[in-house]
Amino acid sequence: MITENIINGKPSSKGKTIIQSWNPVTQDKLPEKFVVATDEEVNSACSKAYSAHKVYRNKSGKDKAQFLRTIADEIETLGDVLINRAVAETGLPQGRILGERGRTCSQLRLFADLVEEGSWVNAIIDEALPEREPLPRVDIRKMLKPLGPVAVFTASNFPLAFSTAGGDTASALAAGCPVIVKSHPSHLGTNALVAEAIVKAAEKCGLPSGVFASLNGEIETGQQLVRNSLVKAVGFTGSFTGGRALFDLANNRAEPIPVYAEMGSNNPIFILNEKLKIDSQPMAETIANSVNLGAGQFCTNPGILMLEQSEMAQAFLKDLTKAFESLPSDIMLGEGIHYKYLHQKDAFSNSNGVSMLVDCNAESWKAAPALATVSASDFFNNKQLQEEVFGPFTMAVLCKDKTEMEQVAHKLNGQLTATMMGTETDFEEYKDLAELLAEKAGRVIFNGVPTGVEVCPAMHHGGPFPSTSSSLFTSVGTDAIKRFARPVAFQNMPESLLPVELKKSNPLGIWRMVNGEMGKS
Amino acid sequence: MITENIINGKPSSKGKTIIQSWNPVTQDKLPEKFVVATDEEVNSACSKAYSAHKVYRNKSGKDKAQFLRTIADEIETLGDVLINRAVAETGLPQGRILGERGRTCSQLRLFADLVEEGSWVNAIIDEALPEREPLPRVDIRKMLKPLGPVAVFTASNFPLAFSTAGGDTASALAAGCPVIVKSHPSHLGTNALVAEAIVKAAEKCGLPSGVFASLNGEIETGQQLVRNSLVKAVGFTGSFTGGRALFDLANNRAEPIPVYAEMGSNNPIFILNEKLKIDSQPMAETIANSVNLGAGQFCTNPGILMLEQSEMAQAFLKDLTKAFESLPSDIMLGEGIHYKYLHQKDAFSNSNGVSMLVDCNAESWKAAPALATVSASDFFNNKQLQEEVFGPFTMAVLCKDKTEMEQVAHKLNGQLTATMMGTETDFEEYKDLAELLAEKAGRVIFNGVPTGVEVCPAMHHGGPFPSTSSSLFTSVGTDAIKRFARPVAFQNMPESLLPVELKKSNPLGIWRMVNGEMGKS
Repeated sequence: MITENIINGKPSSKGKTIIQSWNPVTQDKLPEKFVVATDEEVNSACSKAYSAHKVYRNKSGKDKAQFLRTIADEIETLGDVLINRAVAETGLPQGRILGERGRTCSQLRLFADLVEEGSWVNAIIDEALPEREPLPRVDIRKMLKPLGPVAVFTASNFPLAFSTAGGDTASALAAGCPVIVKSHPSHLGTNALVAEAIVKAAEKCGLPSGVFASLNGEIETGQQLVRNSLVKAVGFTGSFTGGRALFDLANNRAEPIPVYAEMGSNNPIFILNEKLKIDSQPMAETIANSVNLGAGQFCTNPGILMLEQSEMAQAFLKDLTKAFESLPSDIMLGEGIHYKYLHQKDAFSNSNGVSMLVDCNAESWKAAPALATVSASDFFNNKQLQEEVFGPFTMAVLCKDKTEMEQVAHKLNGQLTATMMGTETDFEEYKDLAELLAEKAGRVIFNGVPTGVEVCPAMHHGGPFPSTSSSLFTSVGTDAIKRFARPVAFQNMPESLLPVELKKSNPLGIWRMVNGEMGKS
Repeated sequence: MITENIINGKPSSKGKTIIQSWNPVTQDKLPEKFVVATDEEVNSACSKAYSAHKVYRNKSGKDKAQFLRTIADEIETLGDVLINRAVAETGLPQGRILGERGRTCSQLRLFADLVEEGSWVNAIIDEALPEREPLPRVDIRKMLKPLGPVAVFTASNFPLAFSTAGGDTASALAAGCPVIVKSHPSHLGTNALVAEAIVKAAEKCGLPSGVFASLNGEIETGQQLVRNSLVKAVGFTGSFTGGRALFDLANNRAEPIPVYAEMGSNNPIFILNEKLKIDSQPMAETIANSVNLGAGQFCTNPGILMLEQSEMAQAFLKDLTKAFESLPSDIMLGEGIHYKYLHQKDAFSNSNGVSMLVDCNAESWKAAPALATVSASDFFNNKQLQEEVFGPFTMAVLCKDKTEMEQVAHKLNGQLTATMMGTETDFEEYKDLAELLAEKAGRVIFNGVPTGVEVCPAMHHGGPFPSTSSSLFTSVGTDAIKRFARPVAFQNMPESLLPVELKKSNPLGIWRMVNGEMGKS
């Protein structure tokens, strides 16, 4: 395993500071000593990425697809070494890590298919109208072009699917942007293995070695990376504090750059009355399992349940209590996260009007699932109860009536998701609520749970602030590629210079809008 | 003429501060006294806009199209009153104002056509796959939804086409967002007339009266507007200082919002050797006219000409000098702009290595076209020479050779446009330069001038920072609508609740991507 940084395809360790990962199960430090990147190394990675950009931006969709597929192959070739390391560094069960590897590789292959097909560049052509009165129209053609080197911050809770070769990296590479990854201090070995796989793939595909780099370090390393003027965009998945800090840093540069930060949310579930009557027990079980999935360490973890006060609501809370009591306690990703979970849960339980219905202790770094309840008015008056609790915790907010439920919904922060559980009659009655939730969230779910984010063209994983830093873009699904490309228009460009996507004969046969009409001609 | 602010469809004047426009030709204050909006009025306009949003966001494409077309009709109905007022407030010739009115109205009608047709919402549907292994896929459908109230800052140099009912307003209203306009202090009467036309159109179309508001004031009024938490996006066309200040303000809100600021640029023209040999004189005339168009008060005004040092280059500079000497001096938009032009021109002429080839004085607030020259090395060493001079000024930068030309190009700031003048042989030889320019600019032009920005689907008017605050979006052309809408995904939504754009049968017959395939089914 490479314990150095990887810059220009080679190990690099100019610094003296060492960091190590922990095993959350044994609570031991893992033996490998990773070297933190110096400022000079950070800047060198950016320079090499920019040099690579000048070559990589011209690679065809076919070439980029081959690269992405080779990365997936190389990751699979790592076999159990990768799986075991990721399990050791995260405490996540092997099945979950296997699933994440599958998701990571199919994500890479999905983006490969996307860029090989080619229509994603959104080619729009308005041909010249030399006879137009009063002024002739010139020929104008535009398409998306890669932004340049992208900094990717890996996520603690997804060691594979949102990390070194995860969604941000895959979509940036697919767009034609070199990637510089800042590894997460909690899974340095997993990062090193995947980074090496990417470097091998770049070599095999004959790509410039600056197309990918991996840097180890803490907050300062990341800041140095975002400050580098050659970096043109940032992908981040993590806490609000971390995301907001990077967002501010990037906007205060002489040349501000976009930061796509996914910062988590409460993902409220609104449980409507008729549904409550007919489906209380199975719904309680479904929700409890969603809250406890992966020890509640998902950005789409449902942290708030909204109900109208009634006998049925009380019966549901009993079913929910029972379901929570039979949930297993799972290991959390690390000591810091575990400590924060306990601390936040305590703060909530001591807040005005909050009662804990389930609140146990668990051994070691395990998280015992917890269930709280609070009245809408107490919730309404305490902004802190909208802070995301990262872990298997949810809070039922009891509203007096429909009006109060709508008032609370109106006061919610921006969310990645919002869910309605209801019958057809419920939905008919709560139409206005559905509309309000579409304003508050990036994805509105009906009779499902927010955990489980499908990777597909229609997915939108990006809600209003503070759930993400830009609700106009998604970090999951094929449209994630749009974050890393910008339109460039070419006016009266000679046919011989035109990018292949914009040539008259449409040699790639991609979808284009020509003179206002969609087509493949 | 309404000299009050317009809030909720009615005149409002709670403040005591008065501002007036000037006539740049007579240098007289115009008689009408406009009342500056108080903070309370700014906030009231935002609240009314938010109330209107709840209704307006659900209007069909047909309804919005009718509104946009009615605005265009009402503007035309104003007739000479509007034309005369705009001429009086800007000093621009009548022909130019007539042209701008035409552009404004066709822009409104273009967006009307776009939303009536409906495909702009970018509907993407992935249907459920209940049998998929290992996990079934749920039904997910997404489309663009309006962001909410938008603040529009009008531009001094486009009293109609980038002002009250200009591109930002037209695209925001088309997206389904209410608009609050901050009028420009230099054309308050033009704003008042157009604002009244919009209010009349809203009334005629039965829309909520908060859908449009007009506020008068200076910088503080604009800041108060951007700080209001109900405002969800900002459109701005103007100076770098103004745009950057709004950008910073918006990003420092508790909930940051996108600011689409178009802040101008140098729009360099690269004149290549063979072209220089065969086309010197006509090219000199074309460029001189482009520099002096509208007294040089265009954001796409070419402020830098790049040439390689040679006898031909010297001959071209003689042709250019001659062309500049026969240009007329036109009235500038106002005293402040005129003063700044003279001041900047002076600063340039006193900069190390800069020689003035043409530098005359003109009477009154007229701007005499000016031409300077500087060596690439002196240009290279003085970052200030890249500041935009707002007025009929351009500077020829003489490079030793191709390598130096590429070096200077590499050092350029982000630009709205970059232009190459060349023959086929030139273009073949300067392929790398063309590629570099596509990285520096939002639009690359071949054998044309950057002034004249076609309003069409393929247009991209948005270059890298500092020319705009986000190079991913355009402020001209139909794609400008994308700035004011965000995707929302609906998961497993009952057919009865689905927006019409996402219903199974595609009742609007719009283009959609269904299970990965584009089509109208």
